Amino acid sequence: MEPTYDFGMIGIGVMGSNLLLNIADQGYSVIGFDLKQERADALEAAARPGTTVKGVTDVTLLAAGLKRPRKLMILVPAGKPVDDVIANLLPHLQEGDILIDGGNSYFKDTNRRFRELQPRGIHFFGMGVSGGELGARLGPSLMPGGDAAAYEYLKPILESVAASHDGVPCVAFMGREAAGHYVKMVHNGIEYALMQLLSEAYDLMRRGGYSNKQLATVFSRWNEGPLRSYLVEITADIFTVLDDEDASGATYLIDRILDAAASKGTGKWTSVEGMDLPVAIPTIDAAVSARTLSGGKELRLRVEALFPQEPRAEAVFTEEDAAELETALSVCFVIAYAQGLSLLVAASDAYQMEIPMASVVRVWRAGCIIRSGLLPLFADAFDEQPKLPSVLLHPALASWLQQRTGALRGVVSKGVAGGIPLAAMSSALAYFDALRSGRGPTNLVQAQRDYFGAHTYRRTDREGVFHTEWNRDKTQSDNPVT
Amino acid sequence: MEPTYDFGMIGIGVMGSNLLLNIADQGYSVIGFDLKQERADALEAAARPGTTVKGVTDVTLLAAGLKRPRKLMILVPAGKPVDDVIANLLPHLQEGDILIDGGNSYFKDTNRRFRELQPRGIHFFGMGVSGGELGARLGPSLMPGGDAAAYEYLKPILESVAASHDGVPCVAFMGREAAGHYVKMVHNGIEYALMQLLSEAYDLMRRGGYSNKQLATVFSRWNEGPLRSYLVEITADIFTVLDDEDASGATYLIDRILDAAASKGTGKWTSVEGMDLPVAIPTIDAAVSARTLSGGKELRLRVEALFPQEPRAEAVFTEEDAAELETALSVCFVIAYAQGLSLLVAASDAYQMEIPMASVVRVWRAGCIIRSGLLPLFADAFDEQPKLPSVLLHPALASWLQQRTGALRGVVSKGVAGGIPLAAMSSALAYFDALRSGRGPTNLVQAQRDYFGAHTYRRTDREGVFHTEWNRDKTQSDNPVT
Repeated sequence: MEPTYDFGMIGIGVMGSNLLLNIADQGYSVIGFDLKQERADALEAAARPGTTVKGVTDVTLLAAGLKRPRKLMILVPAGKPVDDVIANLLPHLQEGDILIDGGNSYFKDTNRRFRELQPRGIHFFGMGVSGGELGARLGPSLMPGGDAAAYEYLKPILESVAASHDGVPCVAFMGREAAGHYVKMVHNGIEYALMQLLSEAYDLMRRGGYSNKQLATVFSRWNEGPLRSYLVEITADIFTVLDDEDASGATYLIDRILDAAASKGTGKWTSVEGMDLPVAIPTIDAAVSARTLSGGKELRLRVEALFPQEPRAEAVFTEEDAAELETALSVCFVIAYAQGLSLLVAASDAYQMEIPMASVVRVWRAGCIIRSGLLPLFADAFDEQPKLPSVLLHPALASWLQQRTGALRGVVSKGVAGGIPLAAMSSALAYFDALRSGRGPTNLVQAQRDYFGAHTYRRTDREGVFHTEWNRDKTQSDNPVT
Repeated sequence: MEPTYDFGMIGIGVMGSNLLLNIADQGYSVIGFDLKQERADALEAAARPGTTVKGVTDVTLLAAGLKRPRKLMILVPAGKPVDDVIANLLPHLQEGDILIDGGNSYFKDTNRRFRELQPRGIHFFGMGVSGGELGARLGPSLMPGGDAAAYEYLKPILESVAASHDGVPCVAFMGREAAGHYVKMVHNGIEYALMQLLSEAYDLMRRGGYSNKQLATVFSRWNEGPLRSYLVEITADIFTVLDDEDASGATYLIDRILDAAASKGTGKWTSVEGMDLPVAIPTIDAAVSARTLSGGKELRLRVEALFPQEPRAEAVFTEEDAAELETALSVCFVIAYAQGLSLLVAASDAYQMEIPMASVVRVWRAGCIIRSGLLPLFADAFDEQPKLPSVLLHPALASWLQQRTGALRGVVSKGVAGGIPLAAMSSALAYFDALRSGRGPTNLVQAQRDYFGAHTYRRTDREGVFHTEWNRDKTQSDNPVT
C-alpha cells in the first residue's frame, strides 16, 4: 500500500469512527484499523461522498498506508488495552511518528508511555476528548499534551475538527507529557461538582413542590443567565422527557430513574490528586462522596425509617426562592471551577507541565461537558496572570462574587433547617469562607499534634520550628480512660 | 549467646525503647538492637532495677538471644526502612518466628510483606500503636493484625503492656493480614475529623469573643459530658499554657502558633481508601482538605483583603450558644466515628480481613488519641450486629441522635450566616441528611450521564439497565456555544 493517508485510527467503535469521519469531512484522507472486518466495512460505509475513508484489519497495511511522519490515534479502553496496542504497533513505527492516546487514560500511565516512547523517537500525545459521541462527529473539545514541536504536525488537523467558539477552534496544546490527560481529568472533576450542585438544586425545588414541568421551565430560564451552560441546558431537556414505558404518557422518565449514581472513577482521580499535591478541592471531593452515598440506596431507606422526626422541608419553594437559588448556584459553579483551576495551576508547576491556563479555559468554551458562560471570566483572569493560584484573586471576579454570596448563605441555611443535604453547596461556602479567613483556627490542630505527638509547630512572630512540653506535670494516667 | 530473651526490638528510638522498657517492666526479658552503641547503652541504662534489658549492635546476637519462636518487633520509619530491616533480618530467622511491624506502615505494604514472608513460615504482623511516646511507656492502645494462630504467642505480652480500661487490656487481634494497620489508618482518619471539628468549635467561640481562659473552662466542662475524650481534655489544657517566650507572662501560646496545619498523610490514606472501596467518609475528607487550605496562609490573606464586605461574625457568643455547640459537636463526633466505622466494616468484607468490630471499638477505649466516652455506644451496636453497615442504624444511637441534631442545625446556620467556615460540621450534617434521604436527587445525575455519555441508568420500577435517546431531534449545534 502506498503511503497516501493523512491520519489513522486504531479502535473504530462509535467514538473512534465518529472522530475519524469528522477528520475525513475536513478534507483529510483517513484510515481506520479494527480486528473485525465488519467494523472496517462499516467505517467505509459511513463515509460521506467525496471523502477518502479506508478500513483495514491488518496493522501492517495501516502503517504502510500512512504518510510520514505517521499521525495515528488510539481510541481503546484505558489501561492495559492501550499498552497492548502500543506494543503491537511499535515494530511498524519509525522515528518521528506521532501517536495519540485519545482515551480517558490515567495521567500517570500517559507519563510512563511518553517516557518509554521518547527514546525511540516516537512523539506520544495524551489527548482529552470531550463532547461524547455526537461531539466526536460534529466538533469535540480537544486537549492534547505531549511534545510541543510535534504538535505543529497535528495542529491543522485537530483545529479543523474541533468545536469552535466565535470561529476559534476549541483545541490547543495543553503542555508537556501528560498535560492533556491531566487537564481532561480536572475537567471531569469539575464536571462531577457541577452535576452534584445541579442535583442539589433539583432536590431543593422538588421537595419544595416543583413539578417536572416547572423544573424544565426554571432550568431553561437559568440557561439564559449567568448559569448558561451545557449541563443546565440538558437538565432542562431532561425534565421534559416522558417515560416511553408508560402508555398513559403521564409519567416523566426522571421519576423512574433510580437515585443511585454511578461513576467511572475520573472524579476520584481528581480528588486523590488534590490530596497528593496537595490542593484543596473540597467541592469536588463532596461530589465524589455524594455519588458513593447515593449508591447505598438500601442503607438510606433503613436510616430514613429511624429518623421520622427530622425536618423534611415542607415549605413551598417560591419564585423568589428560585431566583436566590439561581444566584447561589452561579456562585457555587464559580467556586467549583476555581478549585479545579487552582489544582491545574499547582500541578502544572509541580510536574513542570507548562499548562497554558488561559488556553485551557478557552478550549472548554465549546464542545465539552463543562462549557459555560462563566469561562470568559476565568480566561480574562489568566490572561492577566497566567499562574494565578486562585481565580478568586481576580478583582473583577471577586466583586462579581461579593454581590452574590449572600444568596448562597440564604440557600444553604434553608437546606440546613429543612433537612435537605447540600453537601456540595455547603462545601463551596465553607471553602470560600476558609479562603477569605486570613486567620483560621488550625493553630489549635498544630497545638494538639505537638501535644500528643511532638509534631512541632511554627509561630506567627518568628521563623523556626518549635516544640512545647504542654503538660509537664501530667502522666498519662491523668487522662480520662473512658 | 544463649536464647534467653522473650522479646526483641529493632529500632530503639524513643518509641521503640519506651515500648520495650514497658515490656521489661511486665517481667519479660527483652533485647533491643541498634547500629549505634550509644543507643544500645542508653537502653540498658534506662532499665528499671530488677528488669532484664539488653542492648546489642549485632543482628546475629539479637537473633541468637531470642527464644524460639522469636518474637521481634520493628519500629523504624514507614516505607523502605521496613523492607531493608526485613531483608537484613531474614537470614537470621527461622520458620515459626514472629515479626511485628509496629510503625505507621501503609496497609498495602503490610499485605505485600505478609505475603512475601508467609512462604518462609515467618508470621508477619502489622500493628497499629497509638498513644505517642508516653503511651508506649505507660500503656498504648495496640492494634495487631496478621495470623490468628501466631497471635496466641504474642497475646500475653501485648496484653500485659497495653493500656487498660476497667481492667480490660486495650489490645486484641484485629484480623487477617494488614487488618491491624488498616484499623490504625482509620483511627487516624477519625482523629483528623475530630481535630478539625474541635478547631471549628474553637473558631466559633474565639470569633464570638471568648478568651483563652473561657475556652479552657468550656473545654474542661465539655470533658465531663458527652464529649468526654482525650482530644477535648488536651484542648482544655492547651488554652491554659502561656508563651514562655513572652517575659510578661500575658500571652497564651495558642495565640502565637501559626494557623497552618501540617499532616503526615494518614488522613489522606483514609480518604483515598473511602474513594477506592467506595464508602462515603465526607467529614474525614473535609478535615483533610481543611488542613490543606489552612496551609496556604499567604493565599488566604490575599483573598481576605478582596472580600471586605463579607460577614465576620461579630455576634457575641453566649452561654446558650456554648451549650448548643456542645450538643452539636457531640453529634458531629458520632458521625465522624460512624463514617470511619462504616469504612472498616466494608473493608473487612472487601479484603476478607475478618475485623472484629466490637473489639476494635473496645481497644480504642484507652491509650489512643481517639478514646472517648462515646465508644461504648458503638461497642454495643457491634455486639448486637457485628457487620452493621452504619452505627446510625443502631436504635439506641438513632434515638440519642434524634434528640440532638437540632443543635447541629442551629450551629451550622450560625456559621453560614456569620461567615465562619464549618467544613467538617456542615459535611457531617449533609452526610446525616443524605443518609436519611431514602429518595435522593442523583436520578438527575444518572439522567445527565446517560444524556451526554450513554452511560445508562437503572429504574425504580424494574430490573435492568436502560438507555434513552434524550434528545432525538437536536444536533449539537443547538447547544449553547458560550
